[in-house]
Amino acid sequence: MREVTVELGERSYPIYIGEGLIEEAGTYFTKHEISKKSPLLIVTDENVAKRHLAKLESALTTAGFQVHSAVVPPGEKSKSLSVFEDLVTKGLECGLDRKSAIVALGGGVVGDLAGYVAAAYMRGIKFIQIPTTILAHDSSVGGKVAVNHPLAKNIIGAFHQPELVLYDLATLQTLPQRDVKAGLSEVIKHGLIWDAAFTAWVDDNAERLLALDPEALGYALSIGCGIKAQVVSKDERENDLRMILNLGHTIGHALEAVAGYNELLHGEAISIGMVGSARLGVKLGAPQEVYDVTKRVLSRLGLPVQLPQHLDTDAIMEAMLHDKKFSEGTMVFVVPTAIGQVEINKSVSTELVREIVEQLKQEAV
Amino acid sequence: MREVTVELGERSYPIYIGEGLIEEAGTYFTKHEISKKSPLLIVTDENVAKRHLAKLESALTTAGFQVHSAVVPPGEKSKSLSVFEDLVTKGLECGLDRKSAIVALGGGVVGDLAGYVAAAYMRGIKFIQIPTTILAHDSSVGGKVAVNHPLAKNIIGAFHQPELVLYDLATLQTLPQRDVKAGLSEVIKHGLIWDAAFTAWVDDNAERLLALDPEALGYALSIGCGIKAQVVSKDERENDLRMILNLGHTIGHALEAVAGYNELLHGEAISIGMVGSARLGVKLGAPQEVYDVTKRVLSRLGLPVQLPQHLDTDAIMEAMLHDKKFSEGTMVFVVPTAIGQVEINKSVSTELVREIVEQLKQEAV
Ligand SMILES: NC(=O)c1ccc[n+]([C@@H]2O[C@H](COP(=O)([O-])OP(=O)(O)OC[C@H]3O[C@@H](n4cnc5c(N)ncnc54)[C@H](O)[C@@H]3O)[C@@H](O)[C@H]2O)c1
Ligand SMILES: NC(=O)c1ccc[n+]([C@@H]2O[C@H](COP(=O)([O-])OP(=O)(O)OC[C@H]3O[C@@H](n4cnc5c(N)ncnc54)[C@H](O)[C@@H]3O)[C@@H](O)[C@H]2O)c1
Ligand SMILES: [Zn+2]
Ligand SMILES: [Zn+2]
Repeated sequence: MREVTVELGERSYPIYIGEGLIEEAGTYFTKHEISKKSPLLIVTDENVAKRHLAKLESALTTAGFQVHSAVVPPGEKSKSLSVFEDLVTKGLECGLDRKSAIVALGGGVVGDLAGYVAAAYMRGIKFIQIPTTILAHDSSVGGKVAVNHPLAKNIIGAFHQPELVLYDLATLQTLPQRDVKAGLSEVIKHGLIWDAAFTAWVDDNAERLLALDPEALGYALSIGCGIKAQVVSKDERENDLRMILNLGHTIGHALEAVAGYNELLHGEAISIGMVGSARLGVKLGAPQEVYDVTKRVLSRLGLPVQLPQHLDTDAIMEAMLHDKKFSEGTMVFVVPTAIGQVEINKSVSTELVREIVEQLKQEAV
Repeated sequence: MREVTVELGERSYPIYIGEGLIEEAGTYFTKHEISKKSPLLIVTDENVAKRHLAKLESALTTAGFQVHSAVVPPGEKSKSLSVFEDLVTKGLECGLDRKSAIVALGGGVVGDLAGYVAAAYMRGIKFIQIPTTILAHDSSVGGKVAVNHPLAKNIIGAFHQPELVLYDLATLQTLPQRDVKAGLSEVIKHGLIWDAAFTAWVDDNAERLLALDPEALGYALSIGCGIKAQVVSKDERENDLRMILNLGHTIGHALEAVAGYNELLHGEAISIGMVGSARLGVKLGAPQEVYDVTKRVLSRLGLPVQLPQHLDTDAIMEAMLHDKKFSEGTMVFVVPTAIGQVEINKSVSTELVREIVEQLKQEAV
């Protein structure tokens, strides 16, 4: 079992990473003083419920917790204000009070949604994450929770830190291969912004990761969570440093928006975005290696590196200009300066970005 | 002009109280570094818009701010998730970004609603309060913002402190008399929990307050805000001390719920609730004076002290047991021990409360 601490003063919390942790959930919850007198609500989605809910319910019930569950449809559509409202209703019906906790069992969608319910319910109750996707290693650190609005993703939200995170590697064995790869995209992102040695390790161990080797996976997730935790500790409210976590995301979000959220998974979109950022970095003076390594490791992880031809460049540019990261009209980009190192460039010209987008369509695969 | 500071470390903010402050809003906003490059959104209701919106818009526009306005229907019904969603949509359409501010121009309804939009929009943007009711002196201190759910009031919310509060006494001149009285109910509450001298002052100056004498009003609101600010400073997240602010609210909320929100205004309901708490206090050993003074000052302010006969006692008891303040099954009451002094009693028996409710129906007026 590995443990990563997210240091945030009195809001600090641990991430436990290991196999079979769900079976021991009662012990962990008890250790973290989750109330047995107040009911708790597990939020999960249909795919995860089928495979992992009974295990969690029984572990918690056996340990003496009052357990209720809410199962939402899988997918980004559930991160909506209307599902949020249904969950608040469910919480009231189950009698959740100020000492209750909400438990997110699932990927980033369930984590963001349930976390926002926990943030808002009675102005904030306890929150526990049990991530079941690789991508959710990212959402389990930092306390960003949110739902979407038809006009913009993640626009309605809060910062709400969990009490603890239980990362049970056993759940990842049932994850579809495409989601495995998409999740690894954020793992390698953490290497690319912060840790050259870890980037090299992923480059060498891509196959073990894709095969869900528990030892490799546990190591990679603990490093990934650890890097994000370091960044977040230094900048909880996303003022400046935390922006480096957006490597590949400016282009990536635009691609998701233009392609529609079905064609490209988030991790796939930011994979293409990171190749774009690497190109941008090299244009702005970074060594050629930045581009070569970035592209190679993403390819080895089975991730796309070429921008789909049919996506309209104008539409992509338009989507980027609507991105919330552009405050007060400036265009901000996270740009690599070396492997494991990035800087925030606040004056990237629209023309240069357009050029990069065009080149990404020609990227050799 | 009076100034009260709400001390909350790096979230501290000032409340400016005086006549004609709306005309100077541009100066105050500039002083507090509200962005002129990012648009800002004024939220108000129809009643207030008619009387005071144009003044504010013109003051801010003249000072160089980019001003948008959203006008919601007046009344508690606007504190809903659906109006909240409309305001987020409006915010997106106006291009509000992370440096934008939301300005609440109105009473507690507008303050709570707009404040929650500010708390949630992009996970939190700046918030400015311009209260236009007496009751809103209460909601302008403490950062509690929320909307209602059909099953429970204020259940969806956050703690989100404003940048500044501009309390323009001139706006209060257009307030209906019934709302004046209801607002004074929370003002005297602050005396009853904290300050015997202020309670005596209100007792002596009730008529000046009801006549909206600016000098008396400015004094009373600054003391009222000041007391709440002291309590909140010591307990921002409502752990314990802050509960004393709920004097009269346990019974009061139940009355509002049972009577329907049209029959009793919040301030009227808690006026009756405070008489009940005073009775409870005397039963538990406080001097008789606690009851006598409480009832006299509320009567002088034109507030109801008798519980309407037709409200069913069982329904009131039932509503109290659903109140969110009863966590883990204990029944918690704020009980006066002297004028200007209260204690939290965590073991008040249901029978005693029922007896008090019955007596409140017989209260001489
Ligand atoms: N809060 C943050 O900091 C943060 C960071 C990154 C991403 N996110 C959010 O995370 C979301 C994406 O996360 P995601 O990729 O985990 O999406 P997801 O939660 O939708 O999971 C992906 C798919 O895998 C299924 N699934 C999950 N666990 C499974 C398992 N163990 N076995 C089988 N199927 C399983 C889900 O039902 C879903 O169909 C986005 O909404 C994104 O905005 C948030
Ligand atoms: N956040 C907090 O800490 C806190 C504290 C106390 C109360 N509240 C909330 O405040 C709300 C009640 O506040 P309220 O009594 O101010 O209600 P309100 O905002 O509905 O105002 C009362 C009425 O007066 C009208 N009005 C407001 N200003 C006016 C003016 N200057 N001239 C003419 N008409 C005017 C309004 O349109 C409304 O019809 C409740 O929702 C309550 O939950 C919040
Ligand atoms: Zn991401
Ligand atoms: Zn009140």
